Amino acid sequence: MITRRNLIAGSAMLGAAAVARSALAALPEPAYPVGPGTAPPPTPPSGRPFHPVVTLNGWSAPWRMNGAWKEFHLVAEPVTREMAPGMTANLWGYNGQSPGPTVEAVEGDQLRIFVTNKLPEHTAVHWHGLHLPCGMDGVGGLTQPQIPPGKTFVYEFTVSRAGTFMYHPHADEMVQMAMGMMGLFIVHPRDPAQRRVDRDFAFLANAFDIDPGTYTPRVATMTEFNMWCWNSRVFPGIDHLAVRRGDRVRIRMGNLTMTNHPMHLHGYSFSVTGTDGGWVPASAQWPEVTTDIPVGAMRAVEFDADVPGDWAFHCHKAHHTMNAMGHTVPTMIGVDQAAAMKKAATLIPGYMAMGAGGMADMGAMQMPLPENTLPMMTGTGPFGPLEMGGMFSVVKVRDGLASGDYRDPGWYKHPPGTVAREWTGS
Amino acid sequence: MITRRNLIAGSAMLGAAAVARSALAALPEPAYPVGPGTAPPPTPPSGRPFHPVVTLNGWSAPWRMNGAWKEFHLVAEPVTREMAPGMTANLWGYNGQSPGPTVEAVEGDQLRIFVTNKLPEHTAVHWHGLHLPCGMDGVGGLTQPQIPPGKTFVYEFTVSRAGTFMYHPHADEMVQMAMGMMGLFIVHPRDPAQRRVDRDFAFLANAFDIDPGTYTPRVATMTEFNMWCWNSRVFPGIDHLAVRRGDRVRIRMGNLTMTNHPMHLHGYSFSVTGTDGGWVPASAQWPEVTTDIPVGAMRAVEFDADVPGDWAFHCHKAHHTMNAMGHTVPTMIGVDQAAAMKKAATLIPGYMAMGAGGMADMGAMQMPLPENTLPMMTGTGPFGPLEMGGMFSVVKVRDGLASGDYRDPGWYKHPPGTVAREWTGS
Amino acid sequence: MITRRNLIAGSAMLGAAAVARSALAALPEPAYPVGPGTAPPPTPPSGRPFHPVVTLNGWSAPWRMNGAWKEFHLVAEPVTREMAPGMTANLWGYNGQSPGPTVEAVEGDQLRIFVTNKLPEHTAVHWHGLHLPCGMDGVGGLTQPQIPPGKTFVYEFTVSRAGTFMYHPHADEMVQMAMGMMGLFIVHPRDPAQRRVDRDFAFLANAFDIDPGTYTPRVATMTEFNMWCWNSRVFPGIDHLAVRRGDRVRIRMGNLTMTNHPMHLHGYSFSVTGTDGGWVPASAQWPEVTTDIPVGAMRAVEFDADVPGDWAFHCHKAHHTMNAMGHTVPTMIGVDQAAAMKKAATLIPGYMAMGAGGMADMGAMQMPLPENTLPMMTGTGPFGPLEMGGMFSVVKVRDGLASGDYRDPGWYKHPPGTVAREWTGS
Repeated sequence: MITRRNLIAGSAMLGAAAVARSALAALPEPAYPVGPGTAPPPTPPSGRPFHPVVTLNGWSAPWRMNGAWKEFHLVAEPVTREMAPGMTANLWGYNGQSPGPTVEAVEGDQLRIFVTNKLPEHTAVHWHGLHLPCGMDGVGGLTQPQIPPGKTFVYEFTVSRAGTFMYHPHADEMVQMAMGMMGLFIVHPRDPAQRRVDRDFAFLANAFDIDPGTYTPRVATMTEFNMWCWNSRVFPGIDHLAVRRGDRVRIRMGNLTMTNHPMHLHGYSFSVTGTDGGWVPASAQWPEVTTDIPVGAMRAVEFDADVPGDWAFHCHKAHHTMNAMGHTVPTMIGVDQAAAMKKAATLIPGYMAMGAGGMADMGAMQMPLPENTLPMMTGTGPFGPLEMGGMFSVVKVRDGLASGDYRDPGWYKHPPGTVAREWTGS
Repeated sequence: MITRRNLIAGSAMLGAAAVARSALAALPEPAYPVGPGTAPPPTPPSGRPFHPVVTLNGWSAPWRMNGAWKEFHLVAEPVTREMAPGMTANLWGYNGQSPGPTVEAVEGDQLRIFVTNKLPEHTAVHWHGLHLPCGMDGVGGLTQPQIPPGKTFVYEFTVSRAGTFMYHPHADEMVQMAMGMMGLFIVHPRDPAQRRVDRDFAFLANAFDIDPGTYTPRVATMTEFNMWCWNSRVFPGIDHLAVRRGDRVRIRMGNLTMTNHPMHLHGYSFSVTGTDGGWVPASAQWPEVTTDIPVGAMRAVEFDADVPGDWAFHCHKAHHTMNAMGHTVPTMIGVDQAAAMKKAATLIPGYMAMGAGGMADMGAMQMPLPENTLPMMTGTGPFGPLEMGGMFSVVKVRDGLASGDYRDPGWYKHPPGTVAREWTGS
Repeated sequence: MITRRNLIAGSAMLGAAAVARSALAALPEPAYPVGPGTAPPPTPPSGRPFHPVVTLNGWSAPWRMNGAWKEFHLVAEPVTREMAPGMTANLWGYNGQSPGPTVEAVEGDQLRIFVTNKLPEHTAVHWHGLHLPCGMDGVGGLTQPQIPPGKTFVYEFTVSRAGTFMYHPHADEMVQMAMGMMGLFIVHPRDPAQRRVDRDFAFLANAFDIDPGTYTPRVATMTEFNMWCWNSRVFPGIDHLAVRRGDRVRIRMGNLTMTNHPMHLHGYSFSVTGTDGGWVPASAQWPEVTTDIPVGAMRAVEFDADVPGDWAFHCHKAHHTMNAMGHTVPTMIGVDQAAAMKKAATLIPGYMAMGAGGMADMGAMQMPLPENTLPMMTGTGPFGPLEMGGMFSVVKVRDGLASGDYRDPGWYKHPPGTVAREWTGS
């Protein structure tokens, strides 16, 4: 294809902006996460009470009360994200991570959000799904001036309704989202008993195109992404979802990739109870085991966790549960490689043919990989190799967890006689 | 990939067909649009009364009454479409444009639609979503003979139910739709008070693969389109939607591309109230801010425009709000180009490095482009560069518009203190 | 793109496994289909009564009663599938075909399913959508050991609720599904009068990437598939759906490709009445003419077949009603090829230019194709070439069919004056 981009000789780059210390002094301290694990949700220390969400492999932004205002501080900046042990990416995010911290508020809260731009280019923050004055909508050029590098802007609005929302740039949007800039925005009901659940998880689906052996995403990719993530993490780097048997469970998911993600939960049916447009009335709910999350949309699903076990939870597009791979390799299935192997072995010492009988061997094998790359399919469960990657995790339903305990409970102990078994002839 | 098409040595081409003047004499005059702007909807001059839709960057087909028959005339033919100022495409359409004119009728209307084929190959017109006798369904080869070049066919059916439909070829279908052949088909309720809204907009999402510097779409593209359009227009060529504050607004959208389009409206929640299958009962409606329009489907969404402003309205797939670009360029983010620039400058006078700090500079810069191409991201709003392209427009909600006034009201004047502002330290 | 897969030198292949005769002796006989046509559904010979589904170009698995157990036997193995007359593919499936046989059971049935692995690599079977003990969920490594080649495993569970489900591997999942391993799993209501319909069809959408002239799918393809199938068949190899006028019709569809399929039925509106999560309450149903089936999801749609005719039924993505083709060929529309033809003819005797006036000629022409390939668009209807391929069939609504008669009734005889006709000037 002829591409205009190839023809363009552009401007000189801006260096990463230096933000004056003095100007930042009076701002709320932007809190940074410790490591890539899921932070246990804290009890709200001030303001209206609410039941916080659990951000998968993330954390919630702290705030300070300033009179009637609840003040947050987001810092847009380059970050380093461990996608899974063994692979790290150079992304852009907020407050040291991609995605940025989850913003949690309560219906009626009067919010003041400071946004400091430490990126090498301008940005703006759009509060996706929220009803607010047009000038606070965060569309650079249309509803406000862009935030230049080194500057801090302030957004002020009252959140009028509970729901599942997100924030992301509306400035050089394709590039900034391809680099990982996004975060969850949860508004809780004014009455904490309303729509109460026992476990409330949240994450954003995002995707990157990072060549094996490199660190920075391509930013112009439209379809052929190779890192399919939840909160910029891939299996086996995504935390499991620990659930107490009998709990009412909500999982809030958003999608900022370039294609639909049909999220599938094993063992349960669930209903979509909310979108970024509001709560779905009971009369309109469908029972599903796979819910298709459109791009630029949020879905909250709910179910009663009444059957214990390790229940797979993943995007059902087979390539989205794989890590980086090539999509155009020839098929070797059914090809007799004996002759070719013999010849290759004389040329390449140690050469072994691969794939004539499928690819399952790859899940178990330890092969040398380029630096900073994950195996295409990997992971080990209680019964052997899992052969997964990308958008895959496990919902672990257990008796006897404490209500605030989100630690991984380990693998399920199946009652005798309840596991598929080899049949030995009678 | 080995492609059969490459192996095929085909038939000689048919020249564009000449249609005999005498044969056309008694047909209703096919009306042609004046320019690419949105035609204000006329009051129906004859037949049952209805509230007409506003076709974005389009117009409605006139008709003539002939006894009990309402007669339309569509002419399938090559057309020239300005996609936005600066870029024109050679497409196929109806009555001089792509999409063709919107056909509007009323429940119970007895329609006679003449279709004249001025294409170089045969065609047939399928009335998508309408309930009609099988022989009027317009599937070439299956329900009727194909319409040869130079011939006129007549379709006769009664429209039995109100709704949002479309027409498109069902003959060499992939090619003819890839070339732009399609149009909206709206059936209004017999009682004009039923499901009455104040503003009723309509458009079809379509996509083309046109190399920068060329004029005619590739017709075999499956995923990598580069012109993502509403009614064969791209931003900044798509008209804004002027809405009076307090109006009940309906937007009817269809999708004849090859992928879903999640249409996102800022500042409002809306409900899908109708599909090409009929009206959605209130009990089944979901609140949304982004509705995913499947391929080959129509969605009518409704909301009350109670908050004034300039509200972005676009497909939420980031690439679909860009114009033509290459998807495989390497990322330059974080690359120190100083050394490379020095070297390049000695080879290419005037060379400047691009993209090490993102691509926002491209929205503001005027760079030489090939002939007949739009910038990848472009447009200017009241606060600076918008950095958009493709499927992007603005819903402008204003006090004091007249009910039939669809002219662009200019940019919104924000009340003081309601725009995100720079924070200067206190 | 750099691909890890290219760098991998893998393990030696396993030969196709030999399963000991003695071990298989006591197992239920796995039944194999006769030819690629639709098997008429048998009356259940034992167990609870139910109204069986019609598997398009498929068949239902027989069972044997063993005390309280209903026993099935699935054999995972390499198979040969005729995709349409003229093209055969080397796939993997169950019991000699891809998809495997439809498993039909009744609410409350106690099932024992033997799975024998005759593939060259390990496998496991996941019962998608079913509620069962975790150890029977069939996720290799997570809920059970993988089934090694040559071994038989046994799954035991009670089916607790009626609905439309499927089975597929959860082991080397991308590869095994890309090779065609999948099958329908239907659970009927305990009361055969519940949700009773007159015709109940079922199929799975699947996709393959098979180069023209070859037989085995590429297994790493993510988007650019070229064989878009229903039950591993393409038009004109997909059977038509024979329906008696006045029948209540259900069509159950699942999707195990890598993209959404918007299934469109001409002439009718329908409702989605069920998913793999359960039945959709009437209050939540939407009227549609196109329903978008997400990946890894099932949809049951229903309508009353009250208008006779030949009604096209297909995926509405234009490329999915084509057979294998290249997607990057340059457009020839509008190009004057006279000069080029003259030159080419001196070099290639018999050369003819193609496509300057569209591609409709390809539907009618008989051109030499490579071995084992179907025309890109093909098929002939009662009025001429249909120009289709891939996911296309016809719902044939007729007076006077017998209730159990699913044979193709031939083309519809239109009443005089009900077919679109040439207009000859008055």
